[in-house]
Amino acid sequence: MSEFSQRVLAETLGTAVLLTAVVGSGIMGERLAGGNDAIALLANSIATGATLVCLILALGPVSGAHFNPAVTVVAAAHGDLPWREAWQYILGQLIGAGLGVVVANLMFGLDPVSLSTHIRTGPHLWLSEAIATAGLLAVILLVARQRANAVPMAVGCYITGAYWFTSSTSFANPAVTLARTMTDTFAGIRPDDVAGFILAQTAAVAIVILARRRLDRP
Amino acid sequence: MSEFSQRVLAETLGTAVLLTAVVGSGIMGERLAGGNDAIALLANSIATGATLVCLILALGPVSGAHFNPAVTVVAAAHGDLPWREAWQYILGQLIGAGLGVVVANLMFGLDPVSLSTHIRTGPHLWLSEAIATAGLLAVILLVARQRANAVPMAVGCYITGAYWFTSSTSFANPAVTLARTMTDTFAGIRPDDVAGFILAQTAAVAIVILARRRLDRP
Amino acid sequence: MSEFSQRVLAETLGTAVLLTAVVGSGIMGERLAGGNDAIALLANSIATGATLVCLILALGPVSGAHFNPAVTVVAAAHGDLPWREAWQYILGQLIGAGLGVVVANLMFGLDPVSLSTHIRTGPHLWLSEAIATAGLLAVILLVARQRANAVPMAVGCYITGAYWFTSSTSFANPAVTLARTMTDTFAGIRPDDVAGFILAQTAAVAIVILARRRLDRP
Amino acid sequence: MSEFSQRVLAETLGTAVLLTAVVGSGIMGERLAGGNDAIALLANSIATGATLVCLILALGPVSGAHFNPAVTVVAAAHGDLPWREAWQYILGQLIGAGLGVVVANLMFGLDPVSLSTHIRTGPHLWLSEAIATAGLLAVILLVARQRANAVPMAVGCYITGAYWFTSSTSFANPAVTLARTMTDTFAGIRPDDVAGFILAQTAAVAIVILARRRLDRP
Repeated sequence: MSEFSQRVLAETLGTAVLLTAVVGSGIMGERLAGGNDAIALLANSIATGATLVCLILALGPVSGAHFNPAVTVVAAAHGDLPWREAWQYILGQLIGAGLGVVVANLMFGLDPVSLSTHIRTGPHLWLSEAIATAGLLAVILLVARQRANAVPMAVGCYITGAYWFTSSTSFANPAVTLARTMTDTFAGIRPDDVAGFILAQTAAVAIVILARRRLDRP
Repeated sequence: MSEFSQRVLAETLGTAVLLTAVVGSGIMGERLAGGNDAIALLANSIATGATLVCLILALGPVSGAHFNPAVTVVAAAHGDLPWREAWQYILGQLIGAGLGVVVANLMFGLDPVSLSTHIRTGPHLWLSEAIATAGLLAVILLVARQRANAVPMAVGCYITGAYWFTSSTSFANPAVTLARTMTDTFAGIRPDDVAGFILAQTAAVAIVILARRRLDRP
Repeated sequence: MSEFSQRVLAETLGTAVLLTAVVGSGIMGERLAGGNDAIALLANSIATGATLVCLILALGPVSGAHFNPAVTVVAAAHGDLPWREAWQYILGQLIGAGLGVVVANLMFGLDPVSLSTHIRTGPHLWLSEAIATAGLLAVILLVARQRANAVPMAVGCYITGAYWFTSSTSFANPAVTLARTMTDTFAGIRPDDVAGFILAQTAAVAIVILARRRLDRP
Repeated sequence: MSEFSQRVLAETLGTAVLLTAVVGSGIMGERLAGGNDAIALLANSIATGATLVCLILALGPVSGAHFNPAVTVVAAAHGDLPWREAWQYILGQLIGAGLGVVVANLMFGLDPVSLSTHIRTGPHLWLSEAIATAGLLAVILLVARQRANAVPMAVGCYITGAYWFTSSTSFANPAVTLARTMTDTFAGIRPDDVAGFILAQTAAVAIVILARRRLDRP
């Protein structure tokens, strides 16, 4: 298998496991917590953060462990990755994300796909997604430049924290947002509400790209 | 004591402490949580992950800190460990696992052994065990090759996450599965249900061995 | 942008994210926990600690990641930072702290500013703040001198722990104390009670500066 | 101040903060959890583990960060520390432990000292203390020899785990055991029950010293 195919495979599988973690721990939390959503979200946030630490440790050296089109676009915009590779990363992430949700649904005895009815809309949630995404990208860029081997811990800690400090629970990832429409459980999002989330994430990507160019200018 | 005896002793004692952690924290969680299984599982998953971090830090340099026949078989299949040593590792793991459950039961004032009545069966749980086991093995192989000193953190984080994102709470270990029949508490599994779990784990071992050979081929 | 401007910007943005984390996770915890303040504080303490780990990893190499006038004053008193820079750090921290609270309020659909009515006063809370602040400063000074790359983990762990072991939940930071008057939610503090907290924190700063001078004397 | 005085001071202050963390987080957890002891113990175990990580990072390079007569006796028995220094370490630990409990009581508005009425007795708790202590000592000795800079994380993880997997919640420390008689709160222990705990801990110390001599013999 070519080195580039291995990298795309790593993005696909890594994003799949990430979505399995997000959706699966949400289902388990919701089932066991008996209506106390704080305990469900605590489990969801700790499980997602811990899984990200081990996924980035395992696959970072292979593909960079983006698992997120927002990260890949920022990397391509700065020349860290050629655009012709970036599109394949993103395609892999989208397929992986969908696959991960299907696996989570099946493991918990649910239909492979059931569209979410979880309403997540409104300006304060869009503000939340823009901030969550900009924060995630800034953390990755800053830590990668200065202490690359701490990126797994930094990203895991960021997501565990941001699940709580943003009102949208920090999707911060367009592939994650799309895939979470496919499960009518704790972590789901109604298909109608996807556009608002992805627009907010896209705005954050644009802001981070511009800010980075300006800060790097001598 | 010979170097090899020290390694087998490390596998035996390490697996014993792992099982004491899994079973003991399950009993404590169940007793204190007053029926809220989400809080019990949160404690169980954090305690197990944290104990794994310190066990692998302590015993990794001695024996490799497998504590799991699935890990030992994958290592032997790839030539990292001779088969004649692998069988003794596995024997030590099985004895240690049983010992650890007995110690946990005794510490909590229970009979040394009481067969579990906890039903854990069905295709979605078997799928869950196959995925949990394959994920654990993949994380260990990838992190060990690329950043060996991060293996303790990676495995601890994986298990804390996978307790939540798999429907079976990630046994992912045949020695653990067998030993957990010996306690009729939170972490137990009914003896009748062991075969399904171990078959699923074995399937994952086979898939990982084949995938690894294919990926390593030039 | 000059190197010094970048550092002041880092202090401003970092303190903003810290306050967003403290206040936002408090609001989310309070809303979801249904009156069980222990679960809300557990989420609040884990989210704040995790966010601090990633903030200090990201911005430590830029500005030192003080995010706290108490830390900046101790650094200036010892000559690690010129006083003319220290005042600008502190101004940035104060502005950033206020900004972070406004952002948290807005993300959760609240008014940008609403004065807190949360009573936090009395000698035992002042003792608690003095101890929390002195402990934080001591941890930073000792770990920075001996294992600088462990400062992010040390500070994150300290705050997660100190939220629980002090009766005041460890504000330990005058900029944080002032800004938390601006939200009438879980993490708020009544404006009338600010002076007591900041006096206690100031006493701790003085004690740490004197103790450090005495210990460094040959 | 002489280098040895600094080391004894570090043991005294470090043990004080450890006890403040154990007792203070217990009081906070008990007050907020509304009778759900699982949430209180979760907070208690996470706060104690996190505080240990930062304490050992901060004071390990000064004194070795024993904070525990059991650790000091094992070190002295093996010649890592002269006995004449060991006794002063232990005296500092005992004084610090008492001081830490008084500070915790005062911070929470309680009398400086109130004898505990919390019954903790019986053979299964003594077994639990022997195992908890032997495990702690083994982790410290093994990790210190092989990856010394991971000791803070290893000990923090061990204690967070062992609070849950032992029935006695792992006191594992004679100074901690004595001092916890001085608070009639969550973490307290009735004075009558101290002897059983310390005897069990002493048995573990003896076993670890003998096992270490035997394993080191060529």
